[in-house]
Amino acid sequence: MCHHCVVESVKSRMLSRRDFFRGSAVAAGAAALAATAAPRPLFAQAASPMRAIDLTHELHEAFPTFAGEQQFFMEPKYEIGSDGYNLNIWTMEEHVGTHIDAPLHFSEDGASVAELPVEQLVCPLAIIDIRERAEADPDAQVTPDDIAAWVAEHGDIPEGACIAMLSGWDRHVDTDMFRNADADGGMHFPGFHPEATDMLMAETGARVIAVDTLSLDHGPSADFAVHYSWLPSGRYGIECVANLGELPASGATLVVGAPKVRNGTGGLARVFAMV
Amino acid sequence: MCHHCVVESVKSRMLSRRDFFRGSAVAAGAAALAATAAPRPLFAQAASPMRAIDLTHELHEAFPTFAGEQQFFMEPKYEIGSDGYNLNIWTMEEHVGTHIDAPLHFSEDGASVAELPVEQLVCPLAIIDIRERAEADPDAQVTPDDIAAWVAEHGDIPEGACIAMLSGWDRHVDTDMFRNADADGGMHFPGFHPEATDMLMAETGARVIAVDTLSLDHGPSADFAVHYSWLPSGRYGIECVANLGELPASGATLVVGAPKVRNGTGGLARVFAMV
Repeated sequence: MCHHCVVESVKSRMLSRRDFFRGSAVAAGAAALAATAAPRPLFAQAASPMRAIDLTHELHEAFPTFAGEQQFFMEPKYEIGSDGYNLNIWTMEEHVGTHIDAPLHFSEDGASVAELPVEQLVCPLAIIDIRERAEADPDAQVTPDDIAAWVAEHGDIPEGACIAMLSGWDRHVDTDMFRNADADGGMHFPGFHPEATDMLMAETGARVIAVDTLSLDHGPSADFAVHYSWLPSGRYGIECVANLGELPASGATLVVGAPKVRNGTGGLARVFAMV
Repeated sequence: MCHHCVVESVKSRMLSRRDFFRGSAVAAGAAALAATAAPRPLFAQAASPMRAIDLTHELHEAFPTFAGEQQFFMEPKYEIGSDGYNLNIWTMEEHVGTHIDAPLHFSEDGASVAELPVEQLVCPLAIIDIRERAEADPDAQVTPDDIAAWVAEHGDIPEGACIAMLSGWDRHVDTDMFRNADADGGMHFPGFHPEATDMLMAETGARVIAVDTLSLDHGPSADFAVHYSWLPSGRYGIECVANLGELPASGATLVVGAPKVRNGTGGLARVFAMV
């Protein structure tokens, strides 16, 4: 696609926001073209020493799940006293704990978790802080205005970036508040608004979204609109991340230890940020 | 332990090699003391752009195992045609595919895979190339002389480093040669000699060893001497790594996406090198 086409395509999808985003969208289009010519360097900002922050919850049999049922089981197969060493067997659904949603999770033939290019597993991390709003309203969502505010403060969304929602929900992981189900079983926790992810797809080179809750869509979602648009586009998601509050809003690098399982729709991951 | 004690302890365990190692052992002892005073910086060498190399094999149901029996099972639970999305259930032993051996695997109360400090999951990578010897002898082992040769060429083993055996065995992963069982069922593939890991423990600050084969001990080992000395010391191992041949012998940084599973003795991992 030529530069002109990219610009026109972007413009046509963002008429309602052209006053705010036009400049950065053109820049993003140009950046996308530039990215095809030269690989994006990793850790280019790492002139000074870096340290790793763990963004992963510990997984155990009582870890909360979207469905409300146990999805991780562990039983010993060998024990050191009788067998000379310890070894367990795990039985687990792919979407439990801090984990990946690969495109294949919500598409017919999207990339499996093993097919995500390694270049997409190490990427810039942009953090959208909605803690104050989530505290007042558990159904809060990341909106286009939140993304606009991030761009206004930190500059364009970096090419290939992960946009992470910091709602503060990770602190609820060991309580019923993590699912926050009402009397009818409906859940209430923050997530992305589909208009926000539509904007990310139309106007930026973002490849990943991450949430510190059980789902990319917020708890009351009836249609999984974010899952059904973001994942089939070839992008991926990360759910149940922890410790985003320890990171700067801009400048960290995400390293996603996604399990390399053939035909997997996602799976348990170890996720770090380098700062 | 005081500086004098460290030096004396190291000296007493290396009399047979004092001609070669005495200087570096004293330096390592001093470095170990220094490391307790100031955290080791990560990516300190990353003044120039870095890229990620995937050191992970793809896991699938036919992936070869030490025991020779299938240890990873995957079955669909939901399918997009009938259920609106895809999701599988995995049943797996902890030690299948590219995976971690945590101290708890071969000790009564060593650290579980979830208890490995994040600082130990990102570390300098030193690669010992024994491909030529392994080609001639599948039972080849990494010896103290190999480590001495690495130090002579590249300098002291970095504090907290992972020492990885590059035998070239990863290329056999999809063939019977990976286990290389003889008529009596005995396996033949390279691994670490226990004298080499004893030396690493006595004379260096290495925390991790990695192999591109099915076991830290070489195939014919009858006593798992490396497992029974290295892991109970609080250090950990990585088995079935891939692509070490794409890396420099010195200078890469290892990032170990170990699964954060409570009480796990190890488990499927995503392993990268940053170069």
